[in-house]
Amino acid sequence: MMSLRGVEELRTISVKRKFTTTAAGSVLWQQGQTIILATASLSRDLPPWFGTRQLGGWVTAEYTMLPGSTPSRKPWPKTGHTDSRGTEIQRLIGRAIRASIDLSKLGPHSLHIDCHVLQADGGTRTAAICAGFLALRDAVATLPESLTPRDPSQPTETEKAYEKSKIILDPVAAVSVGIIEGQAYLDLDYALDVRAQVDLNLAYTRAGRYVEIQAAAENGLGYTHEQLLSMLDVGRRGCAALHAILDTHVGPIS
Amino acid sequence: MMSLRGVEELRTISVKRKFTTTAAGSVLWQQGQTIILATASLSRDLPPWFGTRQLGGWVTAEYTMLPGSTPSRKPWPKTGHTDSRGTEIQRLIGRAIRASIDLSKLGPHSLHIDCHVLQADGGTRTAAICAGFLALRDAVATLPESLTPRDPSQPTETEKAYEKSKIILDPVAAVSVGIIEGQAYLDLDYALDVRAQVDLNLAYTRAGRYVEIQAAAENGLGYTHEQLLSMLDVGRRGCAALHAILDTHVGPIS
Amino acid sequence: MMSLRGVEELRTISVKRKFTTTAAGSVLWQQGQTIILATASLSRDLPPWFGTRQLGGWVTAEYTMLPGSTPSRKPWPKTGHTDSRGTEIQRLIGRAIRASIDLSKLGPHSLHIDCHVLQADGGTRTAAICAGFLALRDAVATLPESLTPRDPSQPTETEKAYEKSKIILDPVAAVSVGIIEGQAYLDLDYALDVRAQVDLNLAYTRAGRYVEIQAAAENGLGYTHEQLLSMLDVGRRGCAALHAILDTHVGPIS
Amino acid sequence: MMSLRGVEELRTISVKRKFTTTAAGSVLWQQGQTIILATASLSRDLPPWFGTRQLGGWVTAEYTMLPGSTPSRKPWPKTGHTDSRGTEIQRLIGRAIRASIDLSKLGPHSLHIDCHVLQADGGTRTAAICAGFLALRDAVATLPESLTPRDPSQPTETEKAYEKSKIILDPVAAVSVGIIEGQAYLDLDYALDVRAQVDLNLAYTRAGRYVEIQAAAENGLGYTHEQLLSMLDVGRRGCAALHAILDTHVGPIS
Amino acid sequence: MMSLRGVEELRTISVKRKFTTTAAGSVLWQQGQTIILATASLSRDLPPWFGTRQLGGWVTAEYTMLPGSTPSRKPWPKTGHTDSRGTEIQRLIGRAIRASIDLSKLGPHSLHIDCHVLQADGGTRTAAICAGFLALRDAVATLPESLTPRDPSQPTETEKAYEKSKIILDPVAAVSVGIIEGQAYLDLDYALDVRAQVDLNLAYTRAGRYVEIQAAAENGLGYTHEQLLSMLDVGRRGCAALHAILDTHVGPIS
Amino acid sequence: MMSLRGVEELRTISVKRKFTTTAAGSVLWQQGQTIILATASLSRDLPPWFGTRQLGGWVTAEYTMLPGSTPSRKPWPKTGHTDSRGTEIQRLIGRAIRASIDLSKLGPHSLHIDCHVLQADGGTRTAAICAGFLALRDAVATLPESLTPRDPSQPTETEKAYEKSKIILDPVAAVSVGIIEGQAYLDLDYALDVRAQVDLNLAYTRAGRYVEIQAAAENGLGYTHEQLLSMLDVGRRGCAALHAILDTHVGPIS
Repeated sequence: MMSLRGVEELRTISVKRKFTTTAAGSVLWQQGQTIILATASLSRDLPPWFGTRQLGGWVTAEYTMLPGSTPSRKPWPKTGHTDSRGTEIQRLIGRAIRASIDLSKLGPHSLHIDCHVLQADGGTRTAAICAGFLALRDAVATLPESLTPRDPSQPTETEKAYEKSKIILDPVAAVSVGIIEGQAYLDLDYALDVRAQVDLNLAYTRAGRYVEIQAAAENGLGYTHEQLLSMLDVGRRGCAALHAILDTHVGPIS
Repeated sequence: MMSLRGVEELRTISVKRKFTTTAAGSVLWQQGQTIILATASLSRDLPPWFGTRQLGGWVTAEYTMLPGSTPSRKPWPKTGHTDSRGTEIQRLIGRAIRASIDLSKLGPHSLHIDCHVLQADGGTRTAAICAGFLALRDAVATLPESLTPRDPSQPTETEKAYEKSKIILDPVAAVSVGIIEGQAYLDLDYALDVRAQVDLNLAYTRAGRYVEIQAAAENGLGYTHEQLLSMLDVGRRGCAALHAILDTHVGPIS
Repeated sequence: MMSLRGVEELRTISVKRKFTTTAAGSVLWQQGQTIILATASLSRDLPPWFGTRQLGGWVTAEYTMLPGSTPSRKPWPKTGHTDSRGTEIQRLIGRAIRASIDLSKLGPHSLHIDCHVLQADGGTRTAAICAGFLALRDAVATLPESLTPRDPSQPTETEKAYEKSKIILDPVAAVSVGIIEGQAYLDLDYALDVRAQVDLNLAYTRAGRYVEIQAAAENGLGYTHEQLLSMLDVGRRGCAALHAILDTHVGPIS
Repeated sequence: MMSLRGVEELRTISVKRKFTTTAAGSVLWQQGQTIILATASLSRDLPPWFGTRQLGGWVTAEYTMLPGSTPSRKPWPKTGHTDSRGTEIQRLIGRAIRASIDLSKLGPHSLHIDCHVLQADGGTRTAAICAGFLALRDAVATLPESLTPRDPSQPTETEKAYEKSKIILDPVAAVSVGIIEGQAYLDLDYALDVRAQVDLNLAYTRAGRYVEIQAAAENGLGYTHEQLLSMLDVGRRGCAALHAILDTHVGPIS
Repeated sequence: MMSLRGVEELRTISVKRKFTTTAAGSVLWQQGQTIILATASLSRDLPPWFGTRQLGGWVTAEYTMLPGSTPSRKPWPKTGHTDSRGTEIQRLIGRAIRASIDLSKLGPHSLHIDCHVLQADGGTRTAAICAGFLALRDAVATLPESLTPRDPSQPTETEKAYEKSKIILDPVAAVSVGIIEGQAYLDLDYALDVRAQVDLNLAYTRAGRYVEIQAAAENGLGYTHEQLLSMLDVGRRGCAALHAILDTHVGPIS
Repeated sequence: MMSLRGVEELRTISVKRKFTTTAAGSVLWQQGQTIILATASLSRDLPPWFGTRQLGGWVTAEYTMLPGSTPSRKPWPKTGHTDSRGTEIQRLIGRAIRASIDLSKLGPHSLHIDCHVLQADGGTRTAAICAGFLALRDAVATLPESLTPRDPSQPTETEKAYEKSKIILDPVAAVSVGIIEGQAYLDLDYALDVRAQVDLNLAYTRAGRYVEIQAAAENGLGYTHEQLLSMLDVGRRGCAALHAILDTHVGPIS
C-alpha cells in the first residue's frame, strides 16, 4: 500500500487543532503513521538571559519521544526528558519556528512549543515543525489586541513594541527528503529512511524562503551537488503542498 | 454545567483503544476535561533485581504530566521526567495494576505502563489506573498462546509457568472521592478538588476487593470515621460504574 | 521473643529528645529494632513558591535511609539522597505532620523535618511521623513569644498572624497495621511485614481525626471491607496508645 | 586587518600534529583566533549497542568549550560537560567524520574524537571537523597491520574484516559560510558571524561529496535558492582549499 | 567551660559500639559536641575496577553531614548526597582507614564505611576516621575464620589469600591541630577553628607511622616550619591519647 | 633518559604565557610530559554566598582532565565535568592560590582559575598550582589602576578597598615529593609515582611560608617523622627552584 505512494507525494496528513484546551495552542498532527502532539503555551515570563533592554519576546521548543512511540519501548533518559538526538532536534524546531515570526513585534511574551512524538514512523522532526507552527499560530491568536502594561505608569519598551497582527511574518513548513537508489523520495517513513543514503530535512516558508536545511550522509558515500539540487527541488514542492494544508487550518489573526 | 452532575455521578468518560499502534496497548482516556494517554509496552527484558529464580514477570508504571497539560505551563523537572508528586503517583499506579494480575502466570514478560497526562483537570492518577489497566489488558491479549523458549533445550522456570488465559485475576478501576462541606463527592475535577478537605483515591476490583486506598487531609481538620465510611461507599459505587465501562472495552482473552 | 507480643500490642518504644542540640528539635525514636533520628530545623526562609501574600509558614519533611540501616547495605541513590520509595514516604510524612498544625498561625517560619532511618525493621514511615511530630513540637517551643519583624516599620502580614500558643492544633501519631492469615496485626516488624497481604499505614490525631490512610495490596488478593474496618480499629487503638506515649514527652507550649 | 581578508579567503591556519602524545592522534588547530585541540583515542571497547554481529568498528565525537575560551567566562553546565548547543555540534562532528571512513574495514576498534575549544572566534564546529579528521587519520596510522585476535582460536567476524589501508575512504573538511548584506562570506569569525543572516556549515570530501550541510536562518528573513547556491559554491571552494592544507599534514597510511 | 581545656587536651570522648546492629560495625562517637555515627557494612561484591586478578579486598568510605547537624540547616546537595567538601573528606577517610589494614589479607571482601555527622562542632573528619576505624575493626571480627569459596572446585586467588587474623596491620587514629595566636591547639572545636590560621589534620598509627597529613592555610599568612613541627608534635601526642581510648574499645580479633 | 635526572632535580619546565587571549590570564605549562593549560577569567560577579558586606573579592579553581590526557582514554564523568579525585584536587588548588593573595585588596572581582590537564604524567595538581598562579598573576595585571564604581554616587565598601598593587602577597609554587625505597624523590612522574610509598604535595611561598601540605600513604606502611622531614626539605628546595622559574615569567604589577 505504501509502495503506491508517488516519490514526490506526501503521506496522508490529518490535523486536529485544539486537541487539548489547557494550552493556548494544541495540535494533533498525523502524517502517515507518525503522530505528533504539539502544544504552545504562552506566558509573560521571559528567559533570564533575555534581559530588559531587548524588544519583543521569545519562542522556544522542546521535543520528546514518549516511551511507547516506538515498537521497542524507548525508556526515558537517565537525566532530563530528552536524549542527545532529541536535543539536536529541538534546537532545529526552535530555530525554524522562530524564523517564521517577528520576535520584536511579539511583545513581552514567551511561547513554549512542546512537541511530543506519540508514534514514530519517520519524519518526526519535520512533522513537529508543521504541528508546532500551527500551535504557535493558534496561540498567537489568543493574544489580546492591546497589552495591559504590568506597571501602567511605565510601559516597558517591549510592551510598546507589541503588534499582534504583525507577529507572523511568513508561515513555515518542513519535510524530509532522501535519496534511495539514486532517486529523491519525499517524506520518508521509517522503512524508506533506513534505505536512504542521505537524510535531508528542509524548513521552507510560504513565501519561498529557506529557513533551515540539514542534509546528512553517514554511509561513506555522501551525495553530489546534483543529488542535492534534486532533493531541494522535491523538498520545496513538498513544502508548497504542506503550506496548502496549513492554509486550510489557519484563519486570519485578529 | 458541571454543577448539574450528581455528587455520586462520574464525569463523562470516553475511551479510545489502539490510539497508537506501536505499543502493544494504547488507550486514550478522557474523563471530563482530564485526558490520559496510557501505553503498555511488552518485552522479555526483566529488571536486574528480578533474578533468575523467580517465577513469572513484572509490571511497572510511569506517570508524566506533559508541559502543556496545565493552564500555566508545567516545565519538565531539571532531572528526570517526573517530579516528586509524579514519583508518588506512579508507585500507586504500579501497585494498583500489579494487584489485578497474577505475576507468576505472566511468564518472562515485562509490561511497562506509561501514563501521560495530556490535560489535567483533577483525578489524573485514578484515570491513569483505569487507562493503564485497559492498555495492559490489550497488551496481554497480544501475547502468544505458548512461548518459544529462548533456549529450547532449557526452558526456564518462568517460561514453564506461563499461562496466558490466567494472567488477569480481577480487573481494577480507580476513582477519587472528596468531602466538600460535609458531603462526599465522587470524581472531583480541579474546581471541586481545591474545595475538598480530604482527597481519597480508591482502587477497587470488579470482584469487590480493595487494592489501594489513599486518603489524605492537609488542612488541620482531618476527617472522621463516618466521613471515611461515607467516602468509601461512594467510591466503591463509583468503581462499580467504572467496571461497567471497562467491561464494554474488553473482550475475552484468547 | 517477638512472637510473645500481642497482635494489638505496640513494639517497645524508647524516646530520647534533644539527642542532638544543633537543630531546634531532635528525637531519637526506637520502636522494636527500628531506629529513627528526626530533627526539626527552624528558619525564616520560606520556599520560593510561597509568595508574599500568604499568611503563616510552612512545614516540609525529608526521609532518608542511611546505607548501614539494612543488613545488606543500601547504597545512596545515584542522584539525590533518597530513592522513589523514599520520595513517596517523605510526602506522606510531610502531609501528616502539616495536618497537625495551623500553618496560618506559624508566622513566617519554615520548619524542616529530617527523618533518618538509622536501623530499619519495618514501620519506618510511621515511626518517622511520630518522631518528626515530637521534633516539630520541641522546635515550636523554641519560637519566641513575639516576633521581631524583619523590617520594624512594615510588619508583614505573615508576621502579624503569628500566634505561638495556637500552632499545634492536634498532635498526630501513626502506625502500621497488616493482615496476616486473616488476622489484623499492629505495628509490623520486617518479619511480619513480608507475610502480610495488606500494608496499611494510618496517621491519626489525639482528638480522633484521620489525617492519612494508605492501604496497599500488591499480591492479587486485595482486602475486603471487613478486613479494612478491622485494620482501622486496630490502628486507631494503636494510635491512641502512641498518643499516650507522645503525651509523656511533651509539656505545654509557652 | 581582518577586513583585508577576501570574502572567499580562509583565515590563516596553523596546524600542530602530535601536540600531545598520550592519545593516538592529537592536533592543535588554529584558524584565525579560533583554537581547537582535537585528540583521537583508540580502544577495542565498542559501545554496548554495537552488538557482536556487526562488522567493523565505531567512531564517536565529543565537543566541549573550555570555560576560558570566551571573553566572558563560560561556566561548565550544571550536569555533564557540554550544553545543548554542544550536544548538537558533537553529533554533527561525529557524522561528518564517520562519513570519511569505512567503518566495516576498521576492525573491532573504537575511535573517540574529543574536540576542545581552547579559544572561540567563530567556526569552531567546522574547525573541529578538520582537526578531528586529522587526529583520526593519525590514530588510524598507529593501528597494527594485522590484528592479534583476542581469542586466537576464534577470530571474530569484526576482526576478520579489518583492513587498515582501506579505512579512510575520502578525507573530509568543513567550513562555514554566511550571507552578509547579500554577499557570501567564507569562514566567518565572530564579528562577521553576528552580522550574517544565514549560517551555513558544510562538510565536503576531497573527492567532492557533500557529507553534511546545515544552513540555518533565525532572523525572519531566510535565504533564497540563489543565495544557497552561492554559499555552496563558496563553501566547496573553501573546502578544496582546506583539503590542500590537510594533504600537507598527512602522509600515506601503512 | 571549654576554655578550661588544656591546649593539648582532647575534648571529652564517649564511644558506643554496636549502636545499631544491622551493619557489621556501628559506632556512635561523641567528641565534645561533635557526634559521628560510623557504620561498616560487609559484602563480597568488589568494585567493578577491582578486576579478578587482584588479591584481597577493598575498603571505601563515604561522609555525609545530616541536614540538622549544623545550627543553620544544611540542605542536601542538589545531586548526590555529599558536596565537594564532603567528597574531599571522604577520600581522606578512605585512605587513612585503608592504610591501617592489609588489603591483600582481607580476602574477597568489601568494607563500606559510612560516616554520618549527626552534630558538627569541629573535627568531624578526624572523629570520623576514629569512629570508622572502630566500626571496621568490629566488622572484621564478624568475618569467618575460613572462607567457603563461592565455587568450591575453583577457589579464587583472592579467597586463597584470606587471613583474618592478619587483616589489621596497625590501628589508626586522627586528630586536628591548629595555630591560634602562635600557639598550637589540639582538637579544635568550631569556635577555636574559626580563629585558627592553619588547620592540620593528622592520621597516625599506634605504631607511630603517619598515614596522612593535611595542613592548609587560607589566610595569606601561611605557617612556618617551626609551627609545622610544633603542630605535628601536639598532633602525635593527641593521636597517642586517642589510641589509648581506641584500645579500650577493641579486643583481640579471633 | 628520565633516570639521569637527580632525585632533587625538577623535570624540564617550559612555560608559555598568553597561550590564548580570550581569558585575562592563560598559561601553558609543561613539566616533563605533564601539560597543563590554566586560564584565569575575571569578572565582577561574586558568588551568591559572598554577601554584600564583605570586603574584597574571591578566587576559585576548577580542575579537569581532558579525556585524551591519559593513554587509556578517561571518559567525562556521567554528571559534571570532574570526578571525586578532581573535586579534591580543585579544592587544594583553590586554597593554595587564594593563600598567595590578599582577597581584601582585590576589590569586587572574581577570579576563576580553570586548570585543564592536556597530558598527565604525574604531578598534575602541583603543576596546576604553578600554572594557575601565573595565570592569576597575569589576570591581576589587567585590572585597572582605579575602579569605576558600578554606581558612582555610592561606591561600595568592596570597591573602596581595592588596591591593585597590593593584591599579590607572596607568590606560591607547588611540587610533589615521594619516598621510593627509602629515598626522597622530587617531582615524581607517573612511573616513579607508582613506586612511591608516600605521595606528598607541598605548596610553599617565595617568602618561605607553607600554605598547604598533603602527605598520604595508602600502602599499610606509612612514613616516619624522619621521612617526613626529609620530604619537606626536598620539597622546599624544589619550590625555591620553581620560584626562580616563576620569577622569570612575571614582571612588576602596575
